Amino acid sequence: MKIGIDMMGGDFAPLEALKGIQSYFSENADPAQLFLIGNEEVIKPLLSDFSFPEEAFTIVHAPQVIDMHEHPTRALKEKQKSSISVGFHLLATGKTDAFISAGNTGAMLVGSVYSLKPIEGVLRPTISTIIPKEDGKTGLLLDVGLNSDCKPEHLNQFAVMGSVYAQNILGIENPKVGLLNIGEEEGKGNLLAQAAYPLLKENKHINFVGNVEGRDLLIDKADVMVCDGYTGNIILKFAESLFEITNRKQIEHEYFERFNFENVGGTPVLGISKPVIIGHGISKAKAFKNMIVLAQKMIEKDILQKLQAELVA
Amino acid sequence: MKIGIDMMGGDFAPLEALKGIQSYFSENADPAQLFLIGNEEVIKPLLSDFSFPEEAFTIVHAPQVIDMHEHPTRALKEKQKSSISVGFHLLATGKTDAFISAGNTGAMLVGSVYSLKPIEGVLRPTISTIIPKEDGKTGLLLDVGLNSDCKPEHLNQFAVMGSVYAQNILGIENPKVGLLNIGEEEGKGNLLAQAAYPLLKENKHINFVGNVEGRDLLIDKADVMVCDGYTGNIILKFAESLFEITNRKQIEHEYFERFNFENVGGTPVLGISKPVIIGHGISKAKAFKNMIVLAQKMIEKDILQKLQAELVA
Repeated sequence: MKIGIDMMGGDFAPLEALKGIQSYFSENADPAQLFLIGNEEVIKPLLSDFSFPEEAFTIVHAPQVIDMHEHPTRALKEKQKSSISVGFHLLATGKTDAFISAGNTGAMLVGSVYSLKPIEGVLRPTISTIIPKEDGKTGLLLDVGLNSDCKPEHLNQFAVMGSVYAQNILGIENPKVGLLNIGEEEGKGNLLAQAAYPLLKENKHINFVGNVEGRDLLIDKADVMVCDGYTGNIILKFAESLFEITNRKQIEHEYFERFNFENVGGTPVLGISKPVIIGHGISKAKAFKNMIVLAQKMIEKDILQKLQAELVA
Repeated sequence: MKIGIDMMGGDFAPLEALKGIQSYFSENADPAQLFLIGNEEVIKPLLSDFSFPEEAFTIVHAPQVIDMHEHPTRALKEKQKSSISVGFHLLATGKTDAFISAGNTGAMLVGSVYSLKPIEGVLRPTISTIIPKEDGKTGLLLDVGLNSDCKPEHLNQFAVMGSVYAQNILGIENPKVGLLNIGEEEGKGNLLAQAAYPLLKENKHINFVGNVEGRDLLIDKADVMVCDGYTGNIILKFAESLFEITNRKQIEHEYFERFNFENVGGTPVLGISKPVIIGHGISKAKAFKNMIVLAQKMIEKDILQKLQAELVA
């Protein structure tokens, strides 16, 4: 198993990525082969501070960097030797089995959709976020920003992809799927939700439990919650800000600690033909380690095969 | 000044309404004239437990009740002697200057829009919610559910109505208006946000500061935040659930106490020709008192006149 890691992505690159890799190696007796993609002149001198197993990593030189605020499409086109471009190239050509980056999110999304094929039948790849439920369980919300305008059939596919992910990666048996909406009954909501409801209800690949409201996001009403990416992104960032605010206000409680995105690491792009995981720009060691673990799990569980099976069946 | 109160609305009617009224009278030497609208056979026997000033209230008999789960339009048509129908009739005919209810929200919204005229030029009346900012300030989010699908020009009017309300009721000078969106720059977001941005930017009646993201909701980036009612309602209910969850988890902090909707009481329907305030179904005494105070303030500040002035100018 080969996992590519963008060493130049994120605000704390490459040092925090290296720390995360160290932590991954320390905790895994039989680690995946890691491809450290980035400027070797920057990376190599730092390696003496770490003790990576020689046989378990390879440095892949990529002298360019796509900055956080560069225009995604233009940057990918112009910087073919950037760590992100090289990362996608390795993945697309089968030299790696997964790719991780905490770099320019837009470039990662564009690269995911254009360097790799979508899974057959997928209308729109999607990104998700973990939702810490009040009772200790974990929910999944999607889409959280890849698709700011959606059609009903997109939400219907998000439900399938979210269910496969929740079952295989989060370990939730027969995940309950809810449609994020305003009001409980069928027929409520905006035009999108009204049109999506009957599709979800008829969908035999999911365990649809109806509408969930804003107040249900954090409680155990649905495991997988689907909405358009505009709404989902606002909720995601609102939830992330709760962790920051409680931190700043020194409100210490394990519940809000669970809103710390570092615990999850990153979000996979679901619906494309290879595992790609996008991290937060401010990812530190823990986030990098968790992204590697997540990539490994996605490969081991053969998530993409399972997604395809559900989507075309 | 005459304020009508639906005594039969909400889960704890009429007792908590009575307690709220008592509290209002206790705190106001020169109170408004209150019209207690509801079944007098239920209300009168309870009055002996309270000491309302004789001259400051009138009971208006309304023998019917619209239940929380009744179909709004049908209920309003069939139950013309319900407290909500009578309340709107008194308001529409000028016998009261404002109307408050914690009853069936749908019936209150339908009644607001159809019993009363919209203010001239208003495309869509709107409802809002207070957002407790991290720094102790108060923001306003609208729409929060009256308009689940919106057009750009609706958001543009919400911005004006929200600004007038924020300035006059919340006491925010020259309120900063933000467009709730995903991404900071102009051109980001879903189709609605992309189209609304230039309208807001050109609008001379507001102090537009650009896009605000989910992570900015609770910080001091914008005072008035506009979005469609689907998104706003989900945020509102999500925020309300935070108060409940922190309560259940016994996370005690004054910040989360500020998410207690009872502190605000209710939301006014903005854009209609008379003040109408809709309370939460689970409103208790404090919420009722605060709704009366809010209604009084809206009348005193002549909010509707100011709204009209900004909207037609």
